[in-house]
This record gives sequence, C-alpha cells and structure tokens, in this order.
Amino acid sequence: MQILKDKIRTEGRVMPGNILNVGSFLNQQADIELYNEIGKEFFRRFSDVHITRILTIEASGIGIACITAQYFKVPVVFARKFRAKNLDDNLYSAEVTSYTHGVDYTITVPRAFINKDDSVLLIDDFLANGCALEGLVSLTKTAGASLAGAGTVIEKGFQLGGKRLREMNIRIESLAIIESMSPEEGIKFRD
Amino acid sequence: MQILKDKIRTEGRVMPGNILNVGSFLNQQADIELYNEIGKEFFRRFSDVHITRILTIEASGIGIACITAQYFKVPVVFARKFRAKNLDDNLYSAEVTSYTHGVDYTITVPRAFINKDDSVLLIDDFLANGCALEGLVSLTKTAGASLAGAGTVIEKGFQLGGKRLREMNIRIESLAIIESMSPEEGIKFRD
Repeated sequence: MQILKDKIRTEGRVMPGNILNVGSFLNQQADIELYNEIGKEFFRRFSDVHITRILTIEASGIGIACITAQYFKVPVVFARKFRAKNLDDNLYSAEVTSYTHGVDYTITVPRAFINKDDSVLLIDDFLANGCALEGLVSLTKTAGASLAGAGTVIEKGFQLGGKRLREMNIRIESLAIIESMSPEEGIKFRD
Repeated sequence: MQILKDKIRTEGRVMPGNILNVGSFLNQQADIELYNEIGKEFFRRFSDVHITRILTIEASGIGIACITAQYFKVPVVFARKFRAKNLDDNLYSAEVTSYTHGVDYTITVPRAFINKDDSVLLIDDFLANGCALEGLVSLTKTAGASLAGAGTVIEKGFQLGGKRLREMNIRIESLAIIESMSPEEGIKFRD
C-alpha cells in the first residue's frame, strides 16, 4: 500500500532496538484520512470472504478496527489485557507472552460477543513476534468461531510472527512489510 | 439522542453499585452504525466551534473518537494510563484519582501531539465522577491549547462530574443523561 509506505518513510522514526515509532499517525495519534484508506484496503483484500465480526486488542488496534468495520458493516470487539489470573467464567481468555516487554499477560473477551456462527477478521496495527495475534487466534478458536484471517498494518518481516502464523495456515494480509530497518540505513520494504 | 436512549433501554443492563453495562454496543463491543450516529451528533453539536484535534483516553474512548474525527476531519490523540511515576520529558502528564476503582493513575500524551495553536475537543464514552475528563482538561491546559469542550456519550447525571466540570465553565455535551437508575426501577433519562 503505497501511501502507507510513503507515510512510514517520511514520518516513521527507526529507533535502536528494532523499534519503529509511527506514533504520529498510526498509534497514539491517528491520522483519520490514512485510517480510512487502511480500512478500504483491508476491505478490498478480504472482499472474497464473509466476515461477521472484527476482533482486535486494546489499545492501538481499536481505532483502526472501528474505521475498518465501517466498510464491512460489522461490529468490533476488542480483547482486554490483564495481568490478573482470576477470571470471570463469562470470559474467553488466552495467555500471551510478550517477548518485547518480557511479560506474560492474559487477554479476554466476553463470551457473549463471539460465537460459533461468527466468521472473525483479526485487525491489529503491528505484526512482529506475533504473540498478540496468536492470542486472538486462540480466543477465536476457543469460541468455536471461524477465522477468516488477519489484517495488520505494518509487519516487521525480519521478525518471526508472520512466518509462524502463515505456517499455521492463517491468512495474513499486511499492508506494509518491512524487510529491514536501522537508524543508519533507514527502512527497506518487501516488494 | 433518541436512538442512543432506545439502545441503552433495550440493551443496557443496570447492575448493583451504580454500574451501567453497555459493553454490548458502546465499549468492548462497538456497534459501528451507532458509533457513526454518535459521531454525526457530536459534529452537529460542536459545529459552531473550530476544532483542530480530538483528545480521548484509552481504551474505550478511542473507537468513538476515531469515528467522530471523520466528521471533523481532524486527527485523534489518545492519552495513555500509567501507574508508573517515572515519566519521559517529552510527555505532558496529569494525575487522575479514580473514585470508582480507588486508585490513582497518571495519564500522558506526547508533547509533539498537542500544542498552543490547537483547539481541542475531548471525547469519552462515560461521564460519571469526571475524573478522567478532568485529567484531559488538565493535559490540554498544560499544553497551552484552547479547550473547545467535551462530548460524552452517556452522563450519569446523578454523579457529580458533569456539575463540577460545567461549574468550571467547560462546555459539556452529553448525548444521554441518566437521571436515575436501579436494577429494580430501570433507567430514567433527564429531558
């Protein structure tokens, strides 16, 4: 997606430790025009499948998921992140290990919001180690729903999440895949 | 806003402890058609003021703020919540006391995302004790920006936040104001 790649090149900042700061348009600040183009592109790429619900994870996935959902005309559900172990029986939960932050956490969604008749599209801003997305896959399967695929805005192609999820036969559509990046050499996208 | 009130009446659940559960359409699950009507209504109510940025707070304000921002054609910034005390110099911060949960936390936004030329509209899902909104007011003032007002979807009119904020001469537009509610007697809206 060219306008996304252009935006990453002009406004993204590559920081030490494989961090790509796109907070000025994708995360903590949302460029709503770009969000709309992202939503349209996800709709175009998944137009061949029937979707009944979009599932994302708090916090920075929520805005992108909501804008995208307008095109699919379906509700959005977001999973909450917890450190706590005591969970309500009315929730589906999955354990997530964050390699980046070195912590384990639990994600949950109310059982009432996903069911076996659903065809779920996962949406998130980043795909790196894939841990959060694997958690969402697990929640979807626990609910007995079908998984239509996952749309991620930026994939760090040099990390293993995308490869691992595709090997699980999960359809992943990433709008920009970064092949390599460094503060010195900048960003190279996969073709 | 009649369709919102109807939705609250039919799908909202009044729980003990003054809790109104609207998770099936307003929070953890987002009814995107309703979100669009909410966004349009905020735009209608604040159409007399110039807005350059929408500020909200993670997590459940983000989706509503993003959908609303499409009508204003402005970016959305969301404040993050932290328990930590060690803050980056590049952030504006404000302390928030949550009476509901009995904890203090800090909210932050990067300095780069709000400045003195901005006219900020605050958007949030709920107004009850007003603590989160007061934190956003404080962040806006610290940034030297103008505060255009605050749009909240549901105001618990029997709690003091709305009264206190209006006494500070802040323009508050709540799309549904609950006068009283109980599991036994249901929900009464303010006219």
